[in-house]
Amino acid sequence: MSSAPTLTPNGATESDQDHDQESLTLPLLRSQRSPVNSTSQVAIVGANICPIESLDYEIAENDFFKQDWRSRGKIQIFQYIFMKWSLCFLIGLIVGLIGFCNNLAVENIAGAKFVVTSNMMLYERFGMAFLVFLVSNLVLTLFASIITASIAPAAAGSGIPEVKAYLNGVDAPEILSFRTLVVKIIGSISAVSASLLVGKAGPMVHTGACVASLLGQGGSKKYGLTWKWLRFFKNDRDRRDLVTCGSAAGIASAFRAPVGGLLFSLEEMASWWRSALLWRAFFTTAVVAILLRALIDVCLSGKCGLFGKGGLIMFDVYSANISYHLVDVPPVLALGVIGGILGSFYNFLLQKVLRLYNLINEKGFAYKIVLACLISIFTSCLLFGLPWLAPCSPCPADAAEECPTIGRSGNYKKFQCPPGYYNDLASLIFNTNDDAIRNLFSKGTDSEFHYLTVLIFFITCFILSILSYGIVAPVGLFVPVIVTGASYGRFVGMLVGSYSDLNHGLYAVLGAASFLGGSMRMTVSLCVILLELTNNLLLLPLIMLVLLVSKTVADVFNGNIYDLIMKAKGFPYLETHAEPYMRQLTVADVVTGPLRLFNGIEKVGNIVHILKTTRHNGFPVIDEHPVSASSILYGLILRAHLITLLKKKAFLSTPEATGMDAFRQFSAGDFAKRGSGSVDNIEDIDISSEEMEMFLDLHPFTNASPYTVVETMSLAKALTLFRQVGLRHLLVISKLSGRSPVVGILTRHDFMPEHILDLHPTLIRSRWKRLRIRFRLF
Amino acid sequence: MSSAPTLTPNGATESDQDHDQESLTLPLLRSQRSPVNSTSQVAIVGANICPIESLDYEIAENDFFKQDWRSRGKIQIFQYIFMKWSLCFLIGLIVGLIGFCNNLAVENIAGAKFVVTSNMMLYERFGMAFLVFLVSNLVLTLFASIITASIAPAAAGSGIPEVKAYLNGVDAPEILSFRTLVVKIIGSISAVSASLLVGKAGPMVHTGACVASLLGQGGSKKYGLTWKWLRFFKNDRDRRDLVTCGSAAGIASAFRAPVGGLLFSLEEMASWWRSALLWRAFFTTAVVAILLRALIDVCLSGKCGLFGKGGLIMFDVYSANISYHLVDVPPVLALGVIGGILGSFYNFLLQKVLRLYNLINEKGFAYKIVLACLISIFTSCLLFGLPWLAPCSPCPADAAEECPTIGRSGNYKKFQCPPGYYNDLASLIFNTNDDAIRNLFSKGTDSEFHYLTVLIFFITCFILSILSYGIVAPVGLFVPVIVTGASYGRFVGMLVGSYSDLNHGLYAVLGAASFLGGSMRMTVSLCVILLELTNNLLLLPLIMLVLLVSKTVADVFNGNIYDLIMKAKGFPYLETHAEPYMRQLTVADVVTGPLRLFNGIEKVGNIVHILKTTRHNGFPVIDEHPVSASSILYGLILRAHLITLLKKKAFLSTPEATGMDAFRQFSAGDFAKRGSGSVDNIEDIDISSEEMEMFLDLHPFTNASPYTVVETMSLAKALTLFRQVGLRHLLVISKLSGRSPVVGILTRHDFMPEHILDLHPTLIRSRWKRLRIRFRLF
Repeated sequence: MSSAPTLTPNGATESDQDHDQESLTLPLLRSQRSPVNSTSQVAIVGANICPIESLDYEIAENDFFKQDWRSRGKIQIFQYIFMKWSLCFLIGLIVGLIGFCNNLAVENIAGAKFVVTSNMMLYERFGMAFLVFLVSNLVLTLFASIITASIAPAAAGSGIPEVKAYLNGVDAPEILSFRTLVVKIIGSISAVSASLLVGKAGPMVHTGACVASLLGQGGSKKYGLTWKWLRFFKNDRDRRDLVTCGSAAGIASAFRAPVGGLLFSLEEMASWWRSALLWRAFFTTAVVAILLRALIDVCLSGKCGLFGKGGLIMFDVYSANISYHLVDVPPVLALGVIGGILGSFYNFLLQKVLRLYNLINEKGFAYKIVLACLISIFTSCLLFGLPWLAPCSPCPADAAEECPTIGRSGNYKKFQCPPGYYNDLASLIFNTNDDAIRNLFSKGTDSEFHYLTVLIFFITCFILSILSYGIVAPVGLFVPVIVTGASYGRFVGMLVGSYSDLNHGLYAVLGAASFLGGSMRMTVSLCVILLELTNNLLLLPLIMLVLLVSKTVADVFNGNIYDLIMKAKGFPYLETHAEPYMRQLTVADVVTGPLRLFNGIEKVGNIVHILKTTRHNGFPVIDEHPVSASSILYGLILRAHLITLLKKKAFLSTPEATGMDAFRQFSAGDFAKRGSGSVDNIEDIDISSEEMEMFLDLHPFTNASPYTVVETMSLAKALTLFRQVGLRHLLVISKLSGRSPVVGILTRHDFMPEHILDLHPTLIRSRWKRLRIRFRLF
Repeated sequence: MSSAPTLTPNGATESDQDHDQESLTLPLLRSQRSPVNSTSQVAIVGANICPIESLDYEIAENDFFKQDWRSRGKIQIFQYIFMKWSLCFLIGLIVGLIGFCNNLAVENIAGAKFVVTSNMMLYERFGMAFLVFLVSNLVLTLFASIITASIAPAAAGSGIPEVKAYLNGVDAPEILSFRTLVVKIIGSISAVSASLLVGKAGPMVHTGACVASLLGQGGSKKYGLTWKWLRFFKNDRDRRDLVTCGSAAGIASAFRAPVGGLLFSLEEMASWWRSALLWRAFFTTAVVAILLRALIDVCLSGKCGLFGKGGLIMFDVYSANISYHLVDVPPVLALGVIGGILGSFYNFLLQKVLRLYNLINEKGFAYKIVLACLISIFTSCLLFGLPWLAPCSPCPADAAEECPTIGRSGNYKKFQCPPGYYNDLASLIFNTNDDAIRNLFSKGTDSEFHYLTVLIFFITCFILSILSYGIVAPVGLFVPVIVTGASYGRFVGMLVGSYSDLNHGLYAVLGAASFLGGSMRMTVSLCVILLELTNNLLLLPLIMLVLLVSKTVADVFNGNIYDLIMKAKGFPYLETHAEPYMRQLTVADVVTGPLRLFNGIEKVGNIVHILKTTRHNGFPVIDEHPVSASSILYGLILRAHLITLLKKKAFLSTPEATGMDAFRQFSAGDFAKRGSGSVDNIEDIDISSEEMEMFLDLHPFTNASPYTVVETMSLAKALTLFRQVGLRHLLVISKLSGRSPVVGILTRHDFMPEHILDLHPTLIRSRWKRLRIRFRLF
């Protein structure tokens, strides 16, 4: 990090040494450069504002690391490979189990609720039924929001934006902690069981990421739960890979879609990817798939309570052959176009509502809880009230299922109707989301629902899903978007009517695809997820078509929902592509100061002083050159490594090089990156005033191969390097001799458009010229 | 630091310390560095040895380029985006059409052949039938190998290794030319129709890549077939993206597997990938899928001759539900393990046979043709002769199809049997490969084949597919591997027998998966391709399991078949991962000389001399610094740009900077990268002796932002930069002032392990410690 505005004192410290350093760093190319980077160093993680930090994927190749690397034999390589695969296996196993239990719990809690209310309604005790329904929903919501707000605010929301930012290199202390994991699982179960229109797929992704990160961390040092074999994973690179596998496992277990989950994490989540990781993630999702299959085998024998065939979203409704022809293409295209517009409008509204909710949630604990309760009460009233508007329909004579069904799932809900009749709106609305989707997707039910029923359901879902996402509880977006899209599709199918051969269930699937494409803007992963959900590969060409059309249309209006949320939360996400104006700037145009340097053999007092007065994470180390009398760059040393050196007090009384002796005091574990949140502070280290006068030989611990760019490098190409290689610091070196060899450090924040445009306001004109239409509503 | 670890094996403190001191003062460029890089600059492309060149994905950000970039308005951006998508659409359309016609031609030619021979056999004219079979196969093979050997040797083989190397940044003049395309299509049709055990999927990938490259090139300048809108695609980056989409479309149209094709190109082919490309490739394969579906609709009405339901590989044999349980897992695991061993053994044998064939093919045109003819005759004899060994079986009473079938496809071939009987070996062997696979995959035929039949078929396929791949004709590997694997799987299924619930057809599918996994080592893409081929998603967990096991087992023995072939062909493929010994070396340890530099304003004579005496592609441009009197690096200029400057004769009589005037003489098209093969030679430019004394201002045309590394950078990290950013040249700059600012240029060849180990032979011990078992046969 360049520097924090609050911690950089304006009246520069008046010691001579600082003054000397100033003169070395001063003569940069431009004189008008801004003194500090004013980009914000905080972001909204879950529901709270947290400080954020960058992750470092660069290997710190110092002598100590090289020595450690050389000493690794076959046995260490075997340990590493064995652990890599074992961890993936464990991630798959645990995430699969959590996903299954999550479903089991939701089906049983929500199922019990619906059975109780349905039974009361059977005896026409409608008021009592409403009360039970309302109170149980309220209690569940209250529980979810209280544990989230009080124990782990980072668990609020879907978690996908946070994990995506993490995989891009932005860390926040609580994102992947154990506390967050527990609250995420329990909170998600209660929120979904509370009949809120929220999903469990997003929370499952976050859960998967947490599990992966915690497993890689290998227990807690505090409780002595560490294992030597895990030491190879104590760095940001290996942890990133594990989290990528974890997020793939999350979607895989939420939708029972192993290939879809893998592609989701590849297309939407990961910022860095390589072929080897594809294989490992595939292994992880394969474990999930095989485990879920085995568990469902167990459940099919009826040992899982109310979790019957209904559980684990799998809308296996198209095992028969379907056929479609060129004549079906125009309505499908229209479906895609309108779906794209609706999806982007959904994104727009959701963004506005989230902004409003943020204002409310900021006011305090009580406000958060009250907001959640109000949403729950509103939802309960709608779910229980709306079906009264729908007329009772007589049961079809040839119904494949029992009609009306009285228990919880099934296509024909009785609700208030007399025997032999069913309420079609209740079948959709007074049900779990999974069952509603299954009802909408099912074929051979073209005459089951009325126009108006599906339209009311669509509007209800659209509004409720926007209102529900922002509450302080672990809630996802996937299922709400699918259910809204499915009702929209079914409605369009009814309008098209006999003009097309496709049945209404198929239109519902395509509607879900178009709405997903319009809101989430993924292509391959959504396509595969939908195929795995509906279990019919013959749909492939149609789904591809709809997704392509709806994404294209929606991209005209705004961005991907997760990117919008991530940006609103303030994460400094590093884009792959440079903006055009970056080609007109050199790195020297954006580098901000002041720069702090160390000498190869530095006084302890200086180190302590600089560490205390700045929050920089990396410091260039320079050496005086004995021949030319100018100084040369030796490398870059990290703050964490300096603190380790100070803690171990490997001090020298005279400024002489130590060489290999220094290594004996340290083990590789001392320099390993700890789990997020547990960082040593310079303030906690006591150093006596004699020690302050001693010296430290930084050479063996300095990364002697930092990535560098010359100060005249174009900013766009520096960004490409920074992004592709996954850096945290990029040293800017001087072009001219006779000056300080390093003229600055670029970090993530220096590449943020806001920062650059702040420094060079005239460039605003040359941003990407997007042909984008904006909704103007508020 | 810069020394090899093996040189100081006991970690001797003294020498290391000395070395540390040394590194501060003198190390820089070693005196013992090799004068030239001895790595070979040629590779076997198709069947011929060709010179190869690196591709350059770096944007040459010179003043001229920036001026051009700034002048682009909304209309140009629209043109670019419109063309990008139109080209993808066209690629999908053309590749889909080619794939369809390919299938149509094969089914009709091979079908006619089988119908004629079957009719003769019906009248017991066996000798005549054999003659017709033999001669028609021979003629087709002869045709395929003659056009390949004489017109486009680059079209030989599957083309996947060549395209993979191209996507990694290795270009050869003929890889993607129009000639290669035509020969590839026609040759592949004849070779497959000739009943050789070869596939058409690999050639389709190469075809797709050719189509993409030719479309992006936008016709030929020679014939005036260029379009202004295509000028944005005249660079290596955009062409790479198109070729990636093209190769995805190739697999998509060969297997009718759009998602599988996309994943194939992502997992196996592409070296660089980004999210935006995923979407475009998805669009391309969607076009293929939709087109194929429409064309098949047309064919189903019977307008395509012998191309009936059989055409376009789609083994749609599992539309019904299947079930499997834990008890089925052990035999499936065994299948995977043995499949992995077989697959790696297959790779090993194929490699050996290819080496032998190369020796034969090198001897000349006639040898190539004779070899192909011998293989064809051998194949015909086996295919016609082996079924005589099999006894005739009585037709089952409840056969779902006509028995025996006399025409070309169908499960029950009559061959020499009396009416009411069928020859089970002939049903497999005396048939097209696609039909053989369909027969093996089909369920409900457990009693149709005998043990021995399937075993004979497996051995025949194993041998024939290894022998056929190396002939000089466009032949692929996918289908032979699938058919071999399917027969292996079916055989295992028969051995397991009643122990398992799975039927033999399912075992054949899993056997194909295991053999593919063992030979090609892909995971996700193979899994999806197989799912799309068999059209049953319920198989997913089983296929995943088999693929993971067989790939893991096979990786113990050797590498991916395409990588083995690519390496044997001599392509300098750049791996993602650095070998461990690269961390012990600095870039200065591998840089080879001599380095040629230009001044910012250089004498024409010098430029011509250096261009004529070296084959370097990039030259650093340095300027004298007016203040410090030492020279500083200005940037890097490309050979092609220098030649353009010389051709246009933008000379100056005095060494003065020209500034913006220089731009007027040039248009962006002058500096665009041409299609492969068409490069201007320095020898073709006439420059008078007066002109030789004039000057050229290189500044406006020099890339002022080249990527650089400091000479003490570790080689491993330089490789990461080189590979991730996709460079062709990486400048090595000096650490010390007062010397030349540039001390060398790193290119692809400098990172090749052979080159490095040649310079530093002591490092061989510290190569990757792979736990790899080697087959020792020859």
